[in-house]
Amino acid sequence: MEKGQPVRLHRKGGCGNCRIRSAGMSRRYIFWRNSMPHQKFTACIEACNSCAVSCNHCAASCLREPDVAMMARCVALDIDCSAICQLAAAAMARGSEHIKAICALCAEICESCAKECGKHPMEHCQLCARDCRACAEQCRQMSAMA
Amino acid sequence: MEKGQPVRLHRKGGCGNCRIRSAGMSRRYIFWRNSMPHQKFTACIEACNSCAVSCNHCAASCLREPDVAMMARCVALDIDCSAICQLAAAAMARGSEHIKAICALCAEICESCAKECGKHPMEHCQLCARDCRACAEQCRQMSAMA
Amino acid sequence: MEKGQPVRLHRKGGCGNCRIRSAGMSRRYIFWRNSMPHQKFTACIEACNSCAVSCNHCAASCLREPDVAMMARCVALDIDCSAICQLAAAAMARGSEHIKAICALCAEICESCAKECGKHPMEHCQLCARDCRACAEQCRQMSAMA
Amino acid sequence: MEKGQPVRLHRKGGCGNCRIRSAGMSRRYIFWRNSMPHQKFTACIEACNSCAVSCNHCAASCLREPDVAMMARCVALDIDCSAICQLAAAAMARGSEHIKAICALCAEICESCAKECGKHPMEHCQLCARDCRACAEQCRQMSAMA
Repeated sequence: MEKGQPVRLHRKGGCGNCRIRSAGMSRRYIFWRNSMPHQKFTACIEACNSCAVSCNHCAASCLREPDVAMMARCVALDIDCSAICQLAAAAMARGSEHIKAICALCAEICESCAKECGKHPMEHCQLCARDCRACAEQCRQMSAMA
Repeated sequence: MEKGQPVRLHRKGGCGNCRIRSAGMSRRYIFWRNSMPHQKFTACIEACNSCAVSCNHCAASCLREPDVAMMARCVALDIDCSAICQLAAAAMARGSEHIKAICALCAEICESCAKECGKHPMEHCQLCARDCRACAEQCRQMSAMA
Repeated sequence: MEKGQPVRLHRKGGCGNCRIRSAGMSRRYIFWRNSMPHQKFTACIEACNSCAVSCNHCAASCLREPDVAMMARCVALDIDCSAICQLAAAAMARGSEHIKAICALCAEICESCAKECGKHPMEHCQLCARDCRACAEQCRQMSAMA
Repeated sequence: MEKGQPVRLHRKGGCGNCRIRSAGMSRRYIFWRNSMPHQKFTACIEACNSCAVSCNHCAASCLREPDVAMMARCVALDIDCSAICQLAAAAMARGSEHIKAICALCAEICESCAKECGKHPMEHCQLCARDCRACAEQCRQMSAMA
């Protein structure tokens, strides 16, 4: 979009495209130059944000379980996972040069968190395991494409 | 949910309720004890995540504008705003004791970012201003209720 | 420092002054314009970083205690506190416009974490309580000055 | 340290050992079980924190340079680098299972930031390049050891 032109506002929520690309980006930044299909990009950011929420919720919920000791590793991995997911979401939204490597690490940490959460029958763990697996899958694809 | 009971998985995406409350929480934690309507809670987390994405995207896009110097304060506020939005989203997802104060600060920083972004005609700034205002409104409500 | 001039490298570790001020800053940014004594600035960043390390260490150590359930609130506050301390350190290093409000919140969260940690006799809790109190004190001063 | 025993407070500043290890940790967590020399551990956390401060300071200082456009990539990499450095410092302080992979990524991002900052003669860039290289070196060692 050229400066000074009237602003064309997208429908509520914006579109995935305008939120991750703008006119001048593609020439200077490797990531955007590679014609990343923008739907994948938005999908991965959303998967990371959902996963971070589920991990934070799971960590807090584990701390309220009667047998907290059994949940200690789950809490620890939830904290690791929410941190890398938030970092990855922010890096993708900025079109960072390091998205490939960041998403590869995010996928790895999500997988380990999914495995631990998957062992516990509590709903917060099962939901977290599901969101971690979904995020790992999106991040693997992002890492392969980027 | 009691441990050992069969896991009842929600429909894809989960429901707002189970993602922010679980059986044992309400008795021990002030925040949840106050019967926060869970829709508001989820809405505020989502507003924070959307705002963080828009701020990160805006910061990166400002850095690609022809007249970057004019955008310097916008970039600086985008960075501040995305940081507090991610912190607030994580704190709410954990049901932190400090949500009231965190969301009050988040609203304040979102407002200042919205004001700066609102001055620039570029689409990334206009979208960011809109998401900052929406997030500020959600955070003010959260801060008043919590 | 003027661009194009030969770089004068400070002694190892840099000096507090050059790390938080540079020639062009003072004219445009309120925070630096107020002639913040730079030692206080550096001291507060270091207090925040030390506090974040102690909180993260305390959280992980609490999860390894035999009676984890007793430590649940401590873990939760450690996570809150490390997050706001890292955000505050980063904001001060950028000379953010919002340092005053950020440091006020950081002081408040540090105090609540110090109170909880102070109840427990374990060394990681006692060290964390001490670092939280020190950080709260620095942040209160910063908030009053900024 | 056993619960209930009198608290032995270390000298001001604590010692590196007690801040990263405690009695019960070594049995359950791979990272600590491997007898990481604690000086290296503390040194890497401090290198990450220093690097994050320098990157945040450099980003803000670049935005105040007369020719901001020339500094755009520097700002972008500073933001990436400060984010992964803070994440790595927190993960090490918690004795995360994922330190090896996190520090490998941190080293990679620090290197790229050092290269970009090294091109610019401004003091904030030169100091940032130096701290990025020092952090990359510590993180490589940590990644090899962990």
